[in-house]
Amino acid sequence: MPRLPWHPSSEQIRLAPLLDCLSEPLRLVIVCHLAHAGPGNELRCSTFQTLSSKSNLSYHFAKLRKAGIVRFRIVGTMRLMQLRRREIDERFPGLLDAILSAAARDMSN
Amino acid sequence: MPRLPWHPSSEQIRLAPLLDCLSEPLRLVIVCHLAHAGPGNELRCSTFQTLSSKSNLSYHFAKLRKAGIVRFRIVGTMRLMQLRRREIDERFPGLLDAILSAAARDMSN
Repeated sequence: MPRLPWHPSSEQIRLAPLLDCLSEPLRLVIVCHLAHAGPGNELRCSTFQTLSSKSNLSYHFAKLRKAGIVRFRIVGTMRLMQLRRREIDERFPGLLDAILSAAARDMSN
Repeated sequence: MPRLPWHPSSEQIRLAPLLDCLSEPLRLVIVCHLAHAGPGNELRCSTFQTLSSKSNLSYHFAKLRKAGIVRFRIVGTMRLMQLRRREIDERFPGLLDAILSAAARDMSN
């Protein structure tokens, strides 16, 4: 069974790395997709393969994981990525929703 | 009379540079001070001189200005810095308050 990489605990989620992580447009697009995904804000990693190269996506996925924004799990041959919405909302109430709303406004300009 | 540097218009304020700018702890501290300053969220630039060197502060002030987060004006020999709260609130409702609240929680940990 493949080993899962390190994820910060919810107490380890800090504001500066979170904002830095979401200041990159592709990562923000990935987070918007996850936020609007069905049950549990979870998607297969392969969902994003049309957005960029595999190596570039791996880099951005790792940045999102290390900032505590997403969590990975492996089911069979699938690698799933989940937005850590509940934990981020508990840590910084209202922040994720404000950023997602701002992203929608920013992208519509 | 000294010339004021370029400031983006409120329509030119974009989310990615704004988040990137506020992902730097010293800049976030400056913005928190301005947000809690008296009339018009305005302070003398010299207020911050204890936080870092003059050249480092100039660098961070310029980053804040270019991201559309602060506005400068000169009154006599004073250089004043103002948080562009109304414009940011109009552009991205709720975002600045969410970041300021998150900063307060982050700093208290």
